[in-house]
Amino acid sequence: MATQANSVPHPTLVEVDPFVPADQQKGLHNRWHPDIPAYVNVKPGQVFKVQCVDWTGAQIGNNDYSDDIKNVDLTRVHNLSGPIAIEGAEPGDCLVVDILDVTPFEKMPWGYTGIFELENGGGLFAKEFNSKAAKAIWDFKGIYATSRHVPGVRFAGVSHPGLIGTAPSADLLATWNERERGLISQDPNAIPALAFAPESKGAYIGQDLDAELVEKIKAEGARTIPGREHGGNCDIKNLSRGSRCYFPVFIKGANLSVGDLHFSQGDVKISFCGAIEMAGIITLSISIIKGGVEKFALKQPIFLPSPVDPMYSAKLIFEGISVDYHGDGKQYNMDATVAYKQAALNAIAYLMKIGYTREQAYLLLSAAPVESHVGALVDSPNACVTLALPLGIFEHDILPKEEGLKKIDFGQCAIRSDGVV
Amino acid sequence: MATQANSVPHPTLVEVDPFVPADQQKGLHNRWHPDIPAYVNVKPGQVFKVQCVDWTGAQIGNNDYSDDIKNVDLTRVHNLSGPIAIEGAEPGDCLVVDILDVTPFEKMPWGYTGIFELENGGGLFAKEFNSKAAKAIWDFKGIYATSRHVPGVRFAGVSHPGLIGTAPSADLLATWNERERGLISQDPNAIPALAFAPESKGAYIGQDLDAELVEKIKAEGARTIPGREHGGNCDIKNLSRGSRCYFPVFIKGANLSVGDLHFSQGDVKISFCGAIEMAGIITLSISIIKGGVEKFALKQPIFLPSPVDPMYSAKLIFEGISVDYHGDGKQYNMDATVAYKQAALNAIAYLMKIGYTREQAYLLLSAAPVESHVGALVDSPNACVTLALPLGIFEHDILPKEEGLKKIDFGQCAIRSDGVV
Amino acid sequence: MATQANSVPHPTLVEVDPFVPADQQKGLHNRWHPDIPAYVNVKPGQVFKVQCVDWTGAQIGNNDYSDDIKNVDLTRVHNLSGPIAIEGAEPGDCLVVDILDVTPFEKMPWGYTGIFELENGGGLFAKEFNSKAAKAIWDFKGIYATSRHVPGVRFAGVSHPGLIGTAPSADLLATWNERERGLISQDPNAIPALAFAPESKGAYIGQDLDAELVEKIKAEGARTIPGREHGGNCDIKNLSRGSRCYFPVFIKGANLSVGDLHFSQGDVKISFCGAIEMAGIITLSISIIKGGVEKFALKQPIFLPSPVDPMYSAKLIFEGISVDYHGDGKQYNMDATVAYKQAALNAIAYLMKIGYTREQAYLLLSAAPVESHVGALVDSPNACVTLALPLGIFEHDILPKEEGLKKIDFGQCAIRSDGVV
Amino acid sequence: MATQANSVPHPTLVEVDPFVPADQQKGLHNRWHPDIPAYVNVKPGQVFKVQCVDWTGAQIGNNDYSDDIKNVDLTRVHNLSGPIAIEGAEPGDCLVVDILDVTPFEKMPWGYTGIFELENGGGLFAKEFNSKAAKAIWDFKGIYATSRHVPGVRFAGVSHPGLIGTAPSADLLATWNERERGLISQDPNAIPALAFAPESKGAYIGQDLDAELVEKIKAEGARTIPGREHGGNCDIKNLSRGSRCYFPVFIKGANLSVGDLHFSQGDVKISFCGAIEMAGIITLSISIIKGGVEKFALKQPIFLPSPVDPMYSAKLIFEGISVDYHGDGKQYNMDATVAYKQAALNAIAYLMKIGYTREQAYLLLSAAPVESHVGALVDSPNACVTLALPLGIFEHDILPKEEGLKKIDFGQCAIRSDGVV
Repeated sequence: MATQANSVPHPTLVEVDPFVPADQQKGLHNRWHPDIPAYVNVKPGQVFKVQCVDWTGAQIGNNDYSDDIKNVDLTRVHNLSGPIAIEGAEPGDCLVVDILDVTPFEKMPWGYTGIFELENGGGLFAKEFNSKAAKAIWDFKGIYATSRHVPGVRFAGVSHPGLIGTAPSADLLATWNERERGLISQDPNAIPALAFAPESKGAYIGQDLDAELVEKIKAEGARTIPGREHGGNCDIKNLSRGSRCYFPVFIKGANLSVGDLHFSQGDVKISFCGAIEMAGIITLSISIIKGGVEKFALKQPIFLPSPVDPMYSAKLIFEGISVDYHGDGKQYNMDATVAYKQAALNAIAYLMKIGYTREQAYLLLSAAPVESHVGALVDSPNACVTLALPLGIFEHDILPKEEGLKKIDFGQCAIRSDGVV
Repeated sequence: MATQANSVPHPTLVEVDPFVPADQQKGLHNRWHPDIPAYVNVKPGQVFKVQCVDWTGAQIGNNDYSDDIKNVDLTRVHNLSGPIAIEGAEPGDCLVVDILDVTPFEKMPWGYTGIFELENGGGLFAKEFNSKAAKAIWDFKGIYATSRHVPGVRFAGVSHPGLIGTAPSADLLATWNERERGLISQDPNAIPALAFAPESKGAYIGQDLDAELVEKIKAEGARTIPGREHGGNCDIKNLSRGSRCYFPVFIKGANLSVGDLHFSQGDVKISFCGAIEMAGIITLSISIIKGGVEKFALKQPIFLPSPVDPMYSAKLIFEGISVDYHGDGKQYNMDATVAYKQAALNAIAYLMKIGYTREQAYLLLSAAPVESHVGALVDSPNACVTLALPLGIFEHDILPKEEGLKKIDFGQCAIRSDGVV
Repeated sequence: MATQANSVPHPTLVEVDPFVPADQQKGLHNRWHPDIPAYVNVKPGQVFKVQCVDWTGAQIGNNDYSDDIKNVDLTRVHNLSGPIAIEGAEPGDCLVVDILDVTPFEKMPWGYTGIFELENGGGLFAKEFNSKAAKAIWDFKGIYATSRHVPGVRFAGVSHPGLIGTAPSADLLATWNERERGLISQDPNAIPALAFAPESKGAYIGQDLDAELVEKIKAEGARTIPGREHGGNCDIKNLSRGSRCYFPVFIKGANLSVGDLHFSQGDVKISFCGAIEMAGIITLSISIIKGGVEKFALKQPIFLPSPVDPMYSAKLIFEGISVDYHGDGKQYNMDATVAYKQAALNAIAYLMKIGYTREQAYLLLSAAPVESHVGALVDSPNACVTLALPLGIFEHDILPKEEGLKKIDFGQCAIRSDGVV
Repeated sequence: MATQANSVPHPTLVEVDPFVPADQQKGLHNRWHPDIPAYVNVKPGQVFKVQCVDWTGAQIGNNDYSDDIKNVDLTRVHNLSGPIAIEGAEPGDCLVVDILDVTPFEKMPWGYTGIFELENGGGLFAKEFNSKAAKAIWDFKGIYATSRHVPGVRFAGVSHPGLIGTAPSADLLATWNERERGLISQDPNAIPALAFAPESKGAYIGQDLDAELVEKIKAEGARTIPGREHGGNCDIKNLSRGSRCYFPVFIKGANLSVGDLHFSQGDVKISFCGAIEMAGIITLSISIIKGGVEKFALKQPIFLPSPVDPMYSAKLIFEGISVDYHGDGKQYNMDATVAYKQAALNAIAYLMKIGYTREQAYLLLSAAPVESHVGALVDSPNACVTLALPLGIFEHDILPKEEGLKKIDFGQCAIRSDGVV
């Protein structure tokens, strides 16, 4: 009989309940600040697990209306697990983080993708589409996701943390706040906002701390929305289970935080919660390279991708250039974002020909393992960007055919209870 | 003994000499205009070959100085082969173009990558680097390229036409010229220029035409520099040998032109002649889907990539966000181009740690099968872009190591004869 | 807050404890027989989980000696979970089985690979090597396996059921027993045995059944060791998580059984427990195609592999032909098994040059995602087989170098407590 | 204008005409013998081209009958180009051969696959099928092959030399002849022959040599049919353009010979000329590692595969075990060859359901990039082998469907002029 001598399971260092609001739980926080104390401490090389709530902290339900998306409180995001201090890490070191696994909770085998409204979150096409809140619930069936709201597709997830980063130093935090306030000041009332300044409302640090310290953190803490020099909310689909990431260390212990897990995401998350958002468990192992920032010229994380990535070799690829030929025909100057939008709009138009609604297509491009490459940025005035739909995720053959495309009724995704789309 | 009954080789419909200046040869042109008559006619389904000069039309030599790059005459580019009319093609149809093969000339087993100066061509980092002209000659050894100017790497080419497109209608041409002139008018003296208006100087149509018609084409013909709705200079590395592309047809016969062949290119061509530019031979077969523009919602070409693509599964990936943290630290608003630049600058800094000069690194990122993906475009204010270096192209192990990176002396690429770098 | 309305986790239909001997648990059996009643019933399309003990049923421990391998009781294998009856399945139908996931138990993050001795189990090189029992324990760290017994490698698992099949009809069972008894009769005392006849000793059916029925099953039940027309012990590494398999149905309900989970395995399992054997959990969903056996000419299962498979594109490939040039030089006639052995012996000799012992190399070839292809079977008298080592699993560069290979001391795997190797 | 200073094309060291019988040309030979003098000499590192006739030396024509296959003179095969001596190579060294490219002749854009009759060549199913001669002509369209004799498929080639090897020493040659004569003596009249002894008839050395020497070579020279320790006729599809192969050197100069080029081949060439056989041009570069045989424990070639390999990720996989369940139901003992046959017969039965004739299916399995893996060789008594059909090569969807498979009339391949199939 097997002895259990060496059978110690990997310890879970942060435990959460994905169905309980984040601000009622320990080990979570939703701002970046050097003074947030480490919630757990690990030794280099140790394998451990960290549980994470979904990015909103249980604000979204598994149902058929999108009202929760419409009304989500964005001051309370993203809910991160940690900080995790690594013994011996010092500023200037490089943290070698092995993302060993990312899985959903067994008791919560589902996630969601949402389209936000312009006034609350927005998204890449919030203005063009005058988007109303919409949602797709995705069911996890082992390695695959399917959705009652986007029928006709099934794909393997490339699960990853949307958000992972080390804590900033006080100086770096000050730099962030200053430069982002500068941008905001260019148009303070922009909708959606150009950037997000520190905001005490909604801020949460799930530890028993001195009240004064909490107030300081809330007042100064950087919002989690953008990615920055420390990593953060980079939403890179290939920073997935099995990848090895090298982070710069800015404070003693490094204080890594992680959350916003995604079951799957395309290149270019185009809706504000455009991945398949999930609560779940990440398995990590961390080591240190002394002086790694200098050794590797590390201004931002670099990483080795996982050897495990879904192979959908057959693709249909859409091109886009920096002319708004879906709108007013305006010529932009070498703008990759506009070019990407055209490629996405071309793909959406194609998907509508086969029967998806615009909202379904929008959600699918965000959630599925779509690839987007930048072609050229030197052929003035047009940047060129491509977007590749993997054909193997569709139950039907969607290739261009001499006889045209077959249109199927795929229904509609979850929309607002008032029926407005 | 084998009978030769069915052994007819595929016909070569455009023949050129890659060592002779383009404007001394037939079947070439360097402007887009509906009135350029078809130089050859093909039937749907026919397999045929078209020879192409390099994009400059033999202005660049296989030598160790970059003076030819410095002085290249950009009014004389890109030299395209064609037009090729397809029997039965009409406006609104979709042209199904099989790019069956792309190879160099046997007598010219080499190509080049160049860095242009700000005053003549520029490039993504022309301002940041105050770039002086530089060049790498690449030797083609079967499927591989190596360079005496960038030692230590060898990679398989993903050969493709940098430029392929159908002829515009008169209306479409007018739209192009109007919108690009609009952009130019915002800063007519910009260096580099924001866009390129029609320009008679340097224009060339390699057919015996009525002088008046030639003057009209030269005066109105769109420059070939940007990609547009018809395809054109999209510089998409995966529109490679083995891919099938669907083009919208704007005039009777479609009048496809092709040129600017590349032996290899990374995602995001970052130098103005940033691929491995070559002269060579493209093998094509073309068919028609009637009414395809409407059937497939075709505002720009779509394509199926080749099943043949170099597999370098191990990669080192660099991240970039839309903050110029390599320069003045400026915060940009969700700008994928700035984000891409940071990722590229991070990669260049890393490559310099292992011994490449900045110019060599710049050339390598353009020429090798580097991949660049757009991560997210919704996490205000920072777009996030990644750039992936394939590890398998390096002769040495370049992975981050505890002991740091080993620096090797790789010399320098071809620079100006006055020694200015 | 998230409602739990639609949050039902997938049910676990067979529950086992991986540390308890199999013959003390319900829902397990280790013989094939049509009269074993279904232990659970499922509806087509339902997603469910099945827990499995390791193939030996907890006979092997996580320790540093191989005595348990030496003494394993092979009459008590393989322990399978089930049978699972599918509502509506009838003989002649095709069962469409989605293998949605395969994972280890959280409380047992390890598995093992063993070399058996000739007298008990044997293996491909049991005679050549006069093998003594040896073992490697593999630790599961998320998607990766590493081993203190085979240092210097880390690889992503391609987890799969080594054994999965439908129940035979009485006729099919009789055919199996007859043809295998025929083979045995050619050399009844062969060591290792040519095949395994039904054997009451060690047989186990973990259900409360009538004693007479149990005796019948034990007396007639086919051993689980070989793969057969119903699937069974095929040990196909790519029948992995994410694959869809089509099985012929031989009795009402189909009565699928599954077990012998592997965290990873190379093509050509060469040791009798040559994969990384593990206990764990398989997630399944099953549907039916009526009359599928006739529709698809189904004499044995066919399957669609998973889109998720580790990508180690760089490989070192060894060739082998059907001449025993590692032994007595004997010429065999087009024998792919001999050819495979030479390729494996070439790889083992190479691995010994870099410092692995013969036993470590033997275990590694079985456990890692090695690929083996059959080259040609028509070039008399030599079959040609290749074996490909993925380079990305090694921590060190093992490529052939001008200066030869660097030999490192990797210690030794777990061997017998009497020290005999 | 481009100077041609550094533009020297790679020299062609062996020139042949693919339409002229091999025995009328220089630089070809069809036996292995150490005394065949080098036809060309190369320096280490030099890039050069070698032209090759097809393996039969122009015995097969591009027509619609298979009589030439029926009557091919097999004493005159395989026609190899060379030998090529490498300056400085000595016995015990390792030859590093870069296979830089493999292409068809421009004037011969076609190849063939043949089924041989039992009495002349045979094949894997020559007995089972009582095969009559059959043939498919494949047209090369850039990277793709299509066939009027096997409609409905198009696939990218993985072009490679079916046969490449160094010259044996006198001792090694004697060993080969002795061991193969030993096998033949077991059944000298077997049809097809168990092996092929030296045979003066048909032997050819395309050099001006002393008559006595020629007679000696003809009398002793080993036949080229099987692969052996020096490489030879291994028919490995992945020893393709872009691969790097390490050969043992047995005589001074190494004397490498090459031929039997294939445009494409599946794993397990199952017909005697089962690849897409072609004449063509191979580009090589060769270097030497002194003492490499000892350094790398080199008993047979090892190689690094090309980074360029067609990616057809979606596959339908057939299983086979070592029971002849397509025939008399005989139980074999762990015989991978029998197992392979069952997998192939399962695939052929499936392909016949969608409309291919048995002969077309047989030819397709040989010619297309089919993969065959060995599953397990330890589960007595059944070896398990898989065969994977890439779905992307078919114009139609061939997946198993609830409604069954759609049968299409694909006609028939080229058969004998007397109509016997």
